[in-house]
Amino acid sequence: MTTRTVFFVSDQTGVTAETMGHSLLTQFDGLQFRAVTLPFVSSIDKAKEAAKRINAAAAESGLRPIIFGTLVQDELRDELKGTNALFLDFFEAFVGPMEEELGTRSSHRAGQAHGLADAVGYAMRIDATNYALANDDGSHRDYAKADVILVGVSRSGKTPTCLYMAMQYGIFAANYPLTDDDLESNRLPPSLQAHKSKLYGLRIAARRLQQIRQERRPNSRYASAQQVQFETRAAESIFARHGIPVLDTTECSIEEISARVLEAKGIERRVRP
Amino acid sequence: MTTRTVFFVSDQTGVTAETMGHSLLTQFDGLQFRAVTLPFVSSIDKAKEAAKRINAAAAESGLRPIIFGTLVQDELRDELKGTNALFLDFFEAFVGPMEEELGTRSSHRAGQAHGLADAVGYAMRIDATNYALANDDGSHRDYAKADVILVGVSRSGKTPTCLYMAMQYGIFAANYPLTDDDLESNRLPPSLQAHKSKLYGLRIAARRLQQIRQERRPNSRYASAQQVQFETRAAESIFARHGIPVLDTTECSIEEISARVLEAKGIERRVRP
Repeated sequence: MTTRTVFFVSDQTGVTAETMGHSLLTQFDGLQFRAVTLPFVSSIDKAKEAAKRINAAAAESGLRPIIFGTLVQDELRDELKGTNALFLDFFEAFVGPMEEELGTRSSHRAGQAHGLADAVGYAMRIDATNYALANDDGSHRDYAKADVILVGVSRSGKTPTCLYMAMQYGIFAANYPLTDDDLESNRLPPSLQAHKSKLYGLRIAARRLQQIRQERRPNSRYASAQQVQFETRAAESIFARHGIPVLDTTECSIEEISARVLEAKGIERRVRP
Repeated sequence: MTTRTVFFVSDQTGVTAETMGHSLLTQFDGLQFRAVTLPFVSSIDKAKEAAKRINAAAAESGLRPIIFGTLVQDELRDELKGTNALFLDFFEAFVGPMEEELGTRSSHRAGQAHGLADAVGYAMRIDATNYALANDDGSHRDYAKADVILVGVSRSGKTPTCLYMAMQYGIFAANYPLTDDDLESNRLPPSLQAHKSKLYGLRIAARRLQQIRQERRPNSRYASAQQVQFETRAAESIFARHGIPVLDTTECSIEEISARVLEAKGIERRVRP
């Protein structure tokens, strides 16, 4: 099978073009694509250079590339329109209808998303990220400031989910790993009990957890079937006893866990970058 | 000014709808919007419920809401088409031209992006995130595995950028904070010198750095003008002496720093979620 090249072309970071393109490409899951991001295409010269690369990819593979473009300026877009490629133009598709609906012209200024245009929102994302790092794995415990506290056994997905919620949405997410003491006593530490309404439990299937731990610390007690069985069962018992809502993360990405937890707790996203 | 409500409606996490909508909204920077994410709209009942909320927002404010929609199934989209809103339909705009270009039908299956459909790519993002956490702030130092090592003074943006590159692109990014010893001796530790080609320096303006540190540790030596001046100057001297490429992060978001560093070092993104 010949591989088709896809280009994410942006006058800024390329994050929107990548997200848009990736979402669409996953709808064509039998096909193979080679992905190239061309960020900071913010001048005619750079647009000409991008056009050259796109045409070269077309000539090389004999397949027209697909361009996912988020260039704001018409002159730069025009350079890409002449290439031997399918050009899916994000702003052209949607800015027109929005201008009509809102009764105003758009700014056509590059660099508004994923930059520092929203300084307050950006500072919140960084603060939240620092908070997640400081309140990771039961350390620090500044739970009064938390929007949500994820609770679960080691390697149930707590840390990356907290970091994701912080970076993506400015959510203050702490996490607490259930200790052997907690699991044996079927109790929660007082510091957590004081913030019970913020708790959310992450469940993970024993088989999957064992696999993850085995990769991390092969043939350890930590990765043994017995230990994993004990921990996952005892965690369930704690969740049930303390009325903590639970999400099964076995088949969930951090994006999915985040969206489910925010929805279930009714937590509003502070920002969306 | 009346605030218009915008809805990000998705059959999955809502990440694509949010990214798409946010990019477009930033083109209309004089206007105020209230943003609501409706994720997991994956059944007719949920689509009807979403339509009801959208119509209620229209009635309440007297302004038609804008819907940024990434629903894959036609039946669910049809429910939203009947609302009193501007419906910007992501898949309708782009899937048709892609089907024609690729000569095949799309799967019309929900949940392909931001989920676990690409298990290998997802595992790489999580591995990279764990790597960034373990190799943060000069700890651990498994530099042989690094794609890039960010170097700079404390609070120049190293840690959040490493985490972002890991989560977003599966890039293994370590970071090293220049110590007083390094800065005074104008030397790099041998562990870094052994991986010189991977180093990338982050510069930050003294005034901005002082502001950030002042918020973090008010009136400390760490946040003093004198200390900040010394560190930023000494860092420049280290970058110059060791031929380390540098990016000024003073006006850059983590998305921008990541895109610039990857471009400058020619590092390919392993995944794009």
